[in-house]
Amino acid sequence: MAEDGGFMHVRHKPGTPLDRPRELVVACVPMRSNVNVSQIARTASAVGAQRLILTGAAKLINKIARDGAEALPLSVHRTLPPVLARLKADGYRLVGLEQTTGSVSLYTHAFERRTALVVGNERLGLSDEVLAMLDDVVEIPVYGMPHSYNAAIATSIALYEYCRQFPRG
Amino acid sequence: MAEDGGFMHVRHKPGTPLDRPRELVVACVPMRSNVNVSQIARTASAVGAQRLILTGAAKLINKIARDGAEALPLSVHRTLPPVLARLKADGYRLVGLEQTTGSVSLYTHAFERRTALVVGNERLGLSDEVLAMLDDVVEIPVYGMPHSYNAAIATSIALYEYCRQFPRG
Repeated sequence: MAEDGGFMHVRHKPGTPLDRPRELVVACVPMRSNVNVSQIARTASAVGAQRLILTGAAKLINKIARDGAEALPLSVHRTLPPVLARLKADGYRLVGLEQTTGSVSLYTHAFERRTALVVGNERLGLSDEVLAMLDDVVEIPVYGMPHSYNAAIATSIALYEYCRQFPRG
Repeated sequence: MAEDGGFMHVRHKPGTPLDRPRELVVACVPMRSNVNVSQIARTASAVGAQRLILTGAAKLINKIARDGAEALPLSVHRTLPPVLARLKADGYRLVGLEQTTGSVSLYTHAFERRTALVVGNERLGLSDEVLAMLDDVVEIPVYGMPHSYNAAIATSIALYEYCRQFPRG
């Protein structure tokens, strides 16, 4: 119970200030669903990510992405590997979100501040070409059925965990 | 990089076993969107929640809820307060997900094992009647625009945090 004996709405209160801009990029392979892409944009913008990288025919639905469609720097590319190569050269650690051999639990993964979170396709996941470029792969533990999370939800959970580790940027 | 020098897909691998069933219930006030309700059902089922409580006209969309539509015990009620009163009597701590006076960051909230996560409406949040019944309110820090997360995504993040604190149930 709150100290004053009750809870009162304070909806959409201003965000937590960051001590410095995040060095967190979200990069998506071509996705099946622009709903998922747009939900990822909303969360990425809400957590103060630096940039969203989309590939293929991805297009934001403004009603779902909300301010993420305007506030979050966005670039759309034909394919992801050249972009990942540049990020790697710029010192970003490339962290895939996937169930693979060698993937580690998101519970125990210590993120580096300069991270590119690489998100796979809803059905196909990350391509072998992309997997070969990654530094780490993280997975979110699953306990029941289905044995997977929706792509936008998994991405949002990973972004939450990153922010939990870097609560002020 | 994985020890063998590469990452290979292991998609939809079986879930992590729980040492005991979770005592985690998700309870939603009447929601605007059955898409959100169905996404909540998918995540709640994937994390092995005990039960999903819906109210009003909520109806699962099977394609979105996936196995959550079958595997997760579900009940639909006219209103939430009587259900919350029974949960409280059964020893569940009632934890709202909302931005309120007295709400604490999800980063620092220590969940009790026996928890009912109470989810508010997308626009209206939790009613005053429900707020008055809660033991705690947790909020997920926001850093950029928009100043809020989608309801299904916020719920999924809170479920992740609970599971992180109780990784084996």
